Amino acid sequence: MENLKILGLCGSLRKKSTNMGMLRYARAHVPEGMTIEIADLSHIPFYNEDIKDKPSSVEALFQQMSEADGFLFACPEYNYSIAPALKNALDWASREPSNLLLNDKPAAMMGAGGGMGTSRAQYHLRQVCVFLNLHLLNRPEVFCNAFANTFNEESELIDPKIQQLIEQQLIALKAFSQKWQVPKN
Amino acid sequence: MENLKILGLCGSLRKKSTNMGMLRYARAHVPEGMTIEIADLSHIPFYNEDIKDKPSSVEALFQQMSEADGFLFACPEYNYSIAPALKNALDWASREPSNLLLNDKPAAMMGAGGGMGTSRAQYHLRQVCVFLNLHLLNRPEVFCNAFANTFNEESELIDPKIQQLIEQQLIALKAFSQKWQVPKN
Amino acid sequence: MENLKILGLCGSLRKKSTNMGMLRYARAHVPEGMTIEIADLSHIPFYNEDIKDKPSSVEALFQQMSEADGFLFACPEYNYSIAPALKNALDWASREPSNLLLNDKPAAMMGAGGGMGTSRAQYHLRQVCVFLNLHLLNRPEVFCNAFANTFNEESELIDPKIQQLIEQQLIALKAFSQKWQVPKN
Amino acid sequence: MENLKILGLCGSLRKKSTNMGMLRYARAHVPEGMTIEIADLSHIPFYNEDIKDKPSSVEALFQQMSEADGFLFACPEYNYSIAPALKNALDWASREPSNLLLNDKPAAMMGAGGGMGTSRAQYHLRQVCVFLNLHLLNRPEVFCNAFANTFNEESELIDPKIQQLIEQQLIALKAFSQKWQVPKN
Repeated sequence: MENLKILGLCGSLRKKSTNMGMLRYARAHVPEGMTIEIADLSHIPFYNEDIKDKPSSVEALFQQMSEADGFLFACPEYNYSIAPALKNALDWASREPSNLLLNDKPAAMMGAGGGMGTSRAQYHLRQVCVFLNLHLLNRPEVFCNAFANTFNEESELIDPKIQQLIEQQLIALKAFSQKWQVPKN
Repeated sequence: MENLKILGLCGSLRKKSTNMGMLRYARAHVPEGMTIEIADLSHIPFYNEDIKDKPSSVEALFQQMSEADGFLFACPEYNYSIAPALKNALDWASREPSNLLLNDKPAAMMGAGGGMGTSRAQYHLRQVCVFLNLHLLNRPEVFCNAFANTFNEESELIDPKIQQLIEQQLIALKAFSQKWQVPKN
Repeated sequence: MENLKILGLCGSLRKKSTNMGMLRYARAHVPEGMTIEIADLSHIPFYNEDIKDKPSSVEALFQQMSEADGFLFACPEYNYSIAPALKNALDWASREPSNLLLNDKPAAMMGAGGGMGTSRAQYHLRQVCVFLNLHLLNRPEVFCNAFANTFNEESELIDPKIQQLIEQQLIALKAFSQKWQVPKN
Repeated sequence: MENLKILGLCGSLRKKSTNMGMLRYARAHVPEGMTIEIADLSHIPFYNEDIKDKPSSVEALFQQMSEADGFLFACPEYNYSIAPALKNALDWASREPSNLLLNDKPAAMMGAGGGMGTSRAQYHLRQVCVFLNLHLLNRPEVFCNAFANTFNEESELIDPKIQQLIEQQLIALKAFSQKWQVPKN
């Protein structure tokens, strides 16, 4: 089995994003045979059909997406739904005619914040993934309420229970992803 | 009863947006005692807590929102959910401490496109409005599939059935809004 | 202002239902000018268009619904969605041609159980209410995780925070309901 | 590859159910290597934790579920959500401690009726399946508006486009299911 390349996308753009902190934790604690790269969404403009020349930030994202075997979404909850920066990255990708960026790939999601650990946003994101034909891991779901001792001042995840949950999710994502992994020649 | 000021927000940023065409139709066919103004969302950046100085585009939007008695959302469907530009405008507004922009105001929604007339996106938007404490009109729902004879080349709405539905929705919104209208001195 | 008659419907049929315990608490703590009656859903059969003669349990429910000025739903969460007994009662009522049982009435919801206080089920129920043209209170939402000290052995609600939240919701429901209350001659 | 046993569950209980008509069409047009059996939900009572002795109708359903390699849901839309009879069957199954009835099996869904081909109900059902750890086929989705020429008087599906869509879905379900099929000794 080859190495599984997972691309992480985070819906929050602020520097001390706790959702980004979760992705960094995941990246540092992947199971053997998996690597996580984190996309930079900070320069992606709003999708607009009138934009004829793809910005270089979008080109770079598409390159990462095309190389990815699967995805890990860090999904904040803004007003009971998905953060626009995350949704927008997926919207851009969905308009590529090649259909090779997202289609038929496995994915998992996690999120920090909100009164319900971002669950309301995550169920919306699951519906988005139906259209994108992404195959979503069901379990474990990772819902993190960002309390005082969940993240430190640098927004590094320090809560042992959430750390363990993320590690379990990555192991599950690895096993799940192998169902869609096509041998590369 | 004073004039009811409705602010229209459209989730699509492209010039020939059919959703914007619906809003223009609504603006031109308001019942007596209602006016519709359409916000310009094209320069609103992604919400980011790190942005300390509100851009002038956001200030202008907030000014319009604070003056509005209610809202009319033109809600495209991108990948089975809300267009980021619309969601982002609401996310910005939700962070204003004054809580006078959206809270406790009436709203209605419509949408063009998608295989289901944007219904999947509209139900997500309804969930967003629970948090924002916007009071949503239930009926009539306006779901418009954008076929060949629905809009003309300038994206003006030309389908008589959808035109009539929008006019009915505006009449219903007017009656519904009066439940929340506070007499102005 | 006349007395506001609220009908409570509970999705759980078991004797020691915590959701029924919440409804009983609400019934005993209504604000002045409101009364709550609780419907008995235990004998309502599954809706089936082939049933030509309405069972007496359904007739009794319809009588209560037609007399109610508004509704209070106690909404358990079964497998991330609505309990069938609650949904079924609404489905029966929606088929009455008279359209006087639910249409254009105010409602609020609460729920106990689940990892998220039944929020996942409540958002589904909110979508159901769009079709039924019930007007839903947005705030406060009542999400109750049923822990050891939330209910006693008789499933009476004993958690002071949830008690207070319910009382606040009833006050809000009363004010909200007055928007739809038609003077009775 | 062994034969794939799919169990069909239909949310409508009436004799001339169009959703049952879709399931019958599917059963008669399975691809090679797949069989579809249709469960009888007409005698399943509402789930109630107080019921200590499982009714024989529930026992029979559980037997069929335990033997099934996967599921095909015919999902009517009642008031923008799932029909109680379908949800209730899944709720019963979810309480079995053995966890062998539904867990980690593939599934697909279809539906007839409603203004949106039951899509609103189907997205709710998809959320239910996250908890049940059923793995859902994303594509093709089968949304059928029941018009005059879609079903005949016996509720047999006669619309060639929907017939073809169902056949495509069954082929896709077969390929998809093989990812979860465990060799039987």
